[in-house]
Amino acid sequence: MKTALVTGASGYLGGHVARRFLAEGWRVVALVRPGSVLPADLAGRVLRADYDGTQASAERAFACAPVEVVAHLASAVIGVHARDQVDAILDANVRFPVHLLEAMRHGSCKCIVNTGSFWQHCNSDNYAPVNLYAATKKAFEDIAQAYVANDGLRICTLVLFDTYGADDPRKKIVRLLVEAIDSPASLAMSPGDQILDLTHANDVAAAFVVAAGHLLRDRHEGQRFMVTGERVSLRDLVARVAQLADRPPHVELGRRPYRDNEIMNPISSLPPLPGWRREHSLDEEIRAMLSDRERIR
Amino acid sequence: MKTALVTGASGYLGGHVARRFLAEGWRVVALVRPGSVLPADLAGRVLRADYDGTQASAERAFACAPVEVVAHLASAVIGVHARDQVDAILDANVRFPVHLLEAMRHGSCKCIVNTGSFWQHCNSDNYAPVNLYAATKKAFEDIAQAYVANDGLRICTLVLFDTYGADDPRKKIVRLLVEAIDSPASLAMSPGDQILDLTHANDVAAAFVVAAGHLLRDRHEGQRFMVTGERVSLRDLVARVAQLADRPPHVELGRRPYRDNEIMNPISSLPPLPGWRREHSLDEEIRAMLSDRERIR
Repeated sequence: MKTALVTGASGYLGGHVARRFLAEGWRVVALVRPGSVLPADLAGRVLRADYDGTQASAERAFACAPVEVVAHLASAVIGVHARDQVDAILDANVRFPVHLLEAMRHGSCKCIVNTGSFWQHCNSDNYAPVNLYAATKKAFEDIAQAYVANDGLRICTLVLFDTYGADDPRKKIVRLLVEAIDSPASLAMSPGDQILDLTHANDVAAAFVVAAGHLLRDRHEGQRFMVTGERVSLRDLVARVAQLADRPPHVELGRRPYRDNEIMNPISSLPPLPGWRREHSLDEEIRAMLSDRERIR
Repeated sequence: MKTALVTGASGYLGGHVARRFLAEGWRVVALVRPGSVLPADLAGRVLRADYDGTQASAERAFACAPVEVVAHLASAVIGVHARDQVDAILDANVRFPVHLLEAMRHGSCKCIVNTGSFWQHCNSDNYAPVNLYAATKKAFEDIAQAYVANDGLRICTLVLFDTYGADDPRKKIVRLLVEAIDSPASLAMSPGDQILDLTHANDVAAAFVVAAGHLLRDRHEGQRFMVTGERVSLRDLVARVAQLADRPPHVELGRRPYRDNEIMNPISSLPPLPGWRREHSLDEEIRAMLSDRERIR
């Protein structure tokens, strides 16, 4: 039985990644903050370890079980940061994962699947961070290279885009549009020509397990891959929801300006992850949300 | 009167940079750790501000005087880190300068001259960190790009190589060779074919003032420049010291292996800093050290 240490398992994507490892027969160590609550279905099936901000607590997590691979999903995702959030962003997105690398340097687990963000590539194939969050993701990738060069660590980074799922508690775009069908108030939106790349959480989860397998077989070390879903403009997504619902959602396209640094066209120049393909369809998931929307309300 | 905020002024290079700004008529705010001691000749001539690890203390430093430009020299330089040094490296090389950027984001000073290291380029024109120190330097450069993109900050990075000076208290190579002339024990060295790039501390200091001027005139934002001195192999440097001293230093070339990640040929593909040129000669400085070596011993 192989063991994966998953960070962020108390969050939406990390939880799905933990479930996928379990479903494929892995043991899972969920490394979370002391106050974090694991989803009820996971709590009894994973080994929980607490990260209290110290390197020692990161090292202890690897002592729970013979960890073979780390799936690093945890992060502080903050679109526009306030001045009092800088330390929290640095702690979560740089210090914490560097503590993991340092623990791996001294231990037997040498493989880590890291999470990147399309926000690291604002309308550019190169590094062009949308915000401090994206910049700290890149900073961690930079630092990891020292551990790769000197300590035999193997890393690959899965660059994620927008994600969705009928069970997603986050107020993300697909959910907002479905809710806007029955909502009396209308949703103010930008003109809507930006392309979204929408990947189902289960597809993301599968990608992490595939990537873990690659690293364990010494393949694709140091590479960055896109985990890309369906690409659709916001305007077309609104039309799609309208068509599937037989009623338009209450949205006003063009009511808001684009954000500064709006990503109009997400990066598409990274290679796709070998051995992985998308299995979920946006239309199906929208239909599921629609038929479920009585409950949602 | 313009004002520069200098970090690392309690150290060798930072001290020279502070002196150079003063000599060119600038006011200097020296931002140092509470326990740090400024060189005696500087203490009365600069405004001292203490950075206690908090963002608030970084912000207070900018309130001492109307700072126009930051010269960021402070760093935790650690060749091979121990596991208990990770936090100190991250704090000094990432968190501290990000606190500066955040203070600049909310204040009127928008220009920062940053210090890079040739250790970020281990036998490669691209990023290839020798160690965690070098990786954290790169991480900071990448985080700074978010502030450049979103907050109008202007940064340029001076990539430094080995530095020297007759007044250098650090046990660096030129000093060690001069001391080895009179030393009874012999100095065990690698075979000596690695190329060193040796720049005088005063030349480094001049480069920071030149770069500050560029940024204030809106020139060279976002660029990285080499501040390069004389390039000589370690073997030839030994011969040069022997020739100038009329006696060989007691060294054994080939007694030690090269280090892992030894830089055999420092990066030379970066552009030189416009408007700056080297003024000090290695031979002259070696002669000064030789004539001064009674005092050195």
